[in-house]
Amino acid sequence: MTEKMKSQMHFLAEADKMKTILRQTYITDKSRQENSAEHSWHFALTALTLHEYCAIDGVDINRVIKMALVHDLVEIYAGDTPAYDTKGNVDKDEREQKAASKLFSLLPDEQAAEYRSLWEEFDRMETPDAIYGSAVDRLQSFHNIYLSGAHPWIKYSVTASKIYERMMPVKTALPDLWEYVESIVNEGIENGYIRRDGV
Amino acid sequence: MTEKMKSQMHFLAEADKMKTILRQTYITDKSRQENSAEHSWHFALTALTLHEYCAIDGVDINRVIKMALVHDLVEIYAGDTPAYDTKGNVDKDEREQKAASKLFSLLPDEQAAEYRSLWEEFDRMETPDAIYGSAVDRLQSFHNIYLSGAHPWIKYSVTASKIYERMMPVKTALPDLWEYVESIVNEGIENGYIRRDGV
Repeated sequence: MTEKMKSQMHFLAEADKMKTILRQTYITDKSRQENSAEHSWHFALTALTLHEYCAIDGVDINRVIKMALVHDLVEIYAGDTPAYDTKGNVDKDEREQKAASKLFSLLPDEQAAEYRSLWEEFDRMETPDAIYGSAVDRLQSFHNIYLSGAHPWIKYSVTASKIYERMMPVKTALPDLWEYVESIVNEGIENGYIRRDGV
Repeated sequence: MTEKMKSQMHFLAEADKMKTILRQTYITDKSRQENSAEHSWHFALTALTLHEYCAIDGVDINRVIKMALVHDLVEIYAGDTPAYDTKGNVDKDEREQKAASKLFSLLPDEQAAEYRSLWEEFDRMETPDAIYGSAVDRLQSFHNIYLSGAHPWIKYSVTASKIYERMMPVKTALPDLWEYVESIVNEGIENGYIRRDGV
């Protein structure tokens, strides 16, 4: 057992803490908040399952799945920053960069660079893989919020236009599913758990 | 939104139930049992992180990661069958085949066949991808059990030879990590939470 292996096993033990990072989203049986580890799995499975609808050229589904596996790892030290929490998003980047340095330094240099670069690429949402990844990440959250009682939409009094803004990557990368997004937003407005704009 | 898309979204909603399937393994902060969704994520991340040590030729890491994503889905209807629960393992195959038919039939035919065949290949442990996958699946569990208080080893009075038998895929696919497995088993015997054979 080399020091390198030991450090990789230590990284994997540290990664286990993702199971304790709670998101605003609930699981569909409404019993509790979803954690970032199970969200990452659901994101990866969703990316694989809906890949045929991806409207962006040049997406490598295997890289998107790898992004899904590592995209929230920095939350181990930086915590989850809810999408609709304006205050929490002010220093999000700084907190997450620090967390990334701390976490990925547990890995051998080459692997650390690979994981960090996958995370940074995902976060910048510029490449085909990152745009499709973001679309799926957001669609998984949106779908789970809808199925589990709309907690974050109610908590942050979220308006329809805020949701549409957040869901823009879905419109770009999964346009065939946009009608579904709209139907859920309309249902939310009618039932009072999504705020109509200007009201 | 086609019927096909609707059925895929329904499958993804159904897959959310993986977050409620509890395993015998605990998470490392010892606060609660691990669920099958977060385990699947941890398995996939472990497969990616330790890939360089894989001693089997012809392993496609991207297929192994896909196996990790789907390998426990049948538990949604069949439940988790603890590895060391002799009684539960008697009708495991039958229960899981029924569950697979029910779950994968939610998907379009081609995708259903793809996911089912990844799961069956993993379960048979014969191909390079399935052997490496099984090694990682078992190593992840073993490592988490060790880090979180050895619950299943104590509950089922597991002997060292039973653990070694279960860990054989690790010896085959990740031989560089075998020394680590042995050191943990020896520590378990010394501290009384792994039963010495013949005692």
